[in-house]
Amino acid sequence: VTITIPVVSTSPLSFYYGSPDPDAFPTSELLRAMEHTLEHHVPAALLYGPEQGPALLLEEICGKVAREEGLSLSSEQVFISAGASQALDIVCRLWARPGDVVLVGAPTYHEALALLRDYPIRLESVPLDDEGIDAQKLESTLLRLSHSGARVAFLYAIPTFQNPSGVTMTLGRRKDIIALARQHGLWLVEDDVYRDLCFEGTVPPSLFELGDGESVLRLGSFSKILAPGLRLGWVMAEPSAIARLAGAGLRLSAGGANPFAAYVVAEFCRAGHLEQHVQKLVNIYRARRDMVLDLLASTMPSNVTWSTPQGGFHVWLTLPETLYASQVAQAALQNHVRFLPGDAFFVDGNATHNIRLPFSYLQPEDIDRGLHLLARIIRSHS
Amino acid sequence: VTITIPVVSTSPLSFYYGSPDPDAFPTSELLRAMEHTLEHHVPAALLYGPEQGPALLLEEICGKVAREEGLSLSSEQVFISAGASQALDIVCRLWARPGDVVLVGAPTYHEALALLRDYPIRLESVPLDDEGIDAQKLESTLLRLSHSGARVAFLYAIPTFQNPSGVTMTLGRRKDIIALARQHGLWLVEDDVYRDLCFEGTVPPSLFELGDGESVLRLGSFSKILAPGLRLGWVMAEPSAIARLAGAGLRLSAGGANPFAAYVVAEFCRAGHLEQHVQKLVNIYRARRDMVLDLLASTMPSNVTWSTPQGGFHVWLTLPETLYASQVAQAALQNHVRFLPGDAFFVDGNATHNIRLPFSYLQPEDIDRGLHLLARIIRSHS
Repeated sequence: VTITIPVVSTSPLSFYYGSPDPDAFPTSELLRAMEHTLEHHVPAALLYGPEQGPALLLEEICGKVAREEGLSLSSEQVFISAGASQALDIVCRLWARPGDVVLVGAPTYHEALALLRDYPIRLESVPLDDEGIDAQKLESTLLRLSHSGARVAFLYAIPTFQNPSGVTMTLGRRKDIIALARQHGLWLVEDDVYRDLCFEGTVPPSLFELGDGESVLRLGSFSKILAPGLRLGWVMAEPSAIARLAGAGLRLSAGGANPFAAYVVAEFCRAGHLEQHVQKLVNIYRARRDMVLDLLASTMPSNVTWSTPQGGFHVWLTLPETLYASQVAQAALQNHVRFLPGDAFFVDGNATHNIRLPFSYLQPEDIDRGLHLLARIIRSHS
Repeated sequence: VTITIPVVSTSPLSFYYGSPDPDAFPTSELLRAMEHTLEHHVPAALLYGPEQGPALLLEEICGKVAREEGLSLSSEQVFISAGASQALDIVCRLWARPGDVVLVGAPTYHEALALLRDYPIRLESVPLDDEGIDAQKLESTLLRLSHSGARVAFLYAIPTFQNPSGVTMTLGRRKDIIALARQHGLWLVEDDVYRDLCFEGTVPPSLFELGDGESVLRLGSFSKILAPGLRLGWVMAEPSAIARLAGAGLRLSAGGANPFAAYVVAEFCRAGHLEQHVQKLVNIYRARRDMVLDLLASTMPSNVTWSTPQGGFHVWLTLPETLYASQVAQAALQNHVRFLPGDAFFVDGNATHNIRLPFSYLQPEDIDRGLHLLARIIRSHS
């Protein structure tokens, strides 16, 4: 994700990035948390912090999962990172050796692929269906790799409100994946950054919970629920894995990930603002998701299908097989609307019939305009 | 560096970390910069930023080197990182392939060694003398490695107020190193985080300047001159190298290094606070260095020697050859004072006769107490 500037008239309207709503930041509450931090947590908040992160924020994160998921964690099971991206980055550095295989979903978050590609590892993908990562295909992949002598460093998965597909892995599938991981000694990296943005019903427990906290590195983030510009996330894992993360050379050199931001967010949470803010975001994003689904139903031809995400930021559109996403995106761009074809979300980058539709950061009038155009283009090419 | 808590009565007095003075943070000016940022730079400062960093801070850094060094840079030559550590980390990831050699000084900053050791590279060191890295030994090392078919990814050097030795590389030596780098196609990573903390006289131009901005990645940081807890630094390099850094997968996924902190620091600089604050720090650290040098002169036996740093954070003590630094450090710890033996600063970790004495974050009364104890121990072991 790279955009920082809200859409202006000279730029095309963009459905490209999965950014949070730029109009929903709780700036007054953040300012109060900053005042409090500068008054009460200096020098600690301005110095190099402990590698694992400040105790104050570790405790807030333990409190959060205790309240919301009934999980009883100790602070030895939590590590503060500069967002989920940095967590994945440090995990890949420490868990993967040159030549290792890293498994990902097909599709999966495209910039995680970019991040992983900077390491001397080999990416292999396992397809998703509407219940999440296909456990049978995962098993056959693991067996094949094991027979070929390849070492698998970990599986990177986004089980809840997946980016880009919007799919949530079912409880049964989660249990299958955990069982397979145990059987094959496979580490799971569970990217769980969308969980709090649940629009209705409940979601299954995390892989971390289902796996009793073992061999799972569960990534969380304040980017989707507070502000990406603060660059703050966390990892939940067994204490030895947390110690390994805290012992990364980068941490030894730089200290904690973002000490000042960590204190600010801890104080924001302690003041009780996070729950209120998440509720506000859920209402905003649910309305936008509903709007996208209504617009798709009313404008798309019958041979176009799409996912119905229960939460998160993305709807995944599937075009008829005669129509390539890149064609459609190109035609849209000529009309000053930018879409990201599904190709980017696959390891092999093959031409797809999918388009990711993030509904998180565009205002309703822009969603309306963009999707009407998209429907017109698809109809004209069908 | 890992400590966040100022020395308390139950912890030993610590000469272990090279942290900035915890009592000198400009909290009021930082708060005003934060208020300004939340008022004028939202949403940009709270969103994912551009990978290279926000233009506002890139411009401030260009302005800084123009004022202080007469260097005329464009913003395409600057990249914002989460401190110099993250910059070195991303450089190692992108510049080094598995099996490559990374060259470092002997001694060099120990946590840079920890950071580099997380990569599948091989560390080799080149000795320093009192003019900096030994150019003849660098040449013979490069020739030997070239003959053995090894690829050298880069040389990591701290030419100015070196950590841990306090040595500043002479102009002649800098020119020799640049010439060798050109001849051998060697990239130089110039860790220049102490330059602003110059206590007297002037220091030679950076390797970056002497090399006309080519094949040098010059790392800067706000950690020593403002606050490490903000996690903000920069890289100066040729535009293609900056583009390579900005294209790192981590940046594509996470956006800019620390967008909020970047705006805050840009506003802090725009308000003219940085120069004033650096001047204040120079006065504080100069007085402490002077105190350390005076104490060493008045307390140490004549067979102990030390460096006289012109700036930065560290004095490097050399014990007589009969006395190991680890012995002395152990005896000091029994007396509740912690020193870091020189062993950590060498790739081979061999037992040394050196002790690093950071004078940056201890208060004068603690420096006095610690150095008197150190002298007593050395005398009793001599």
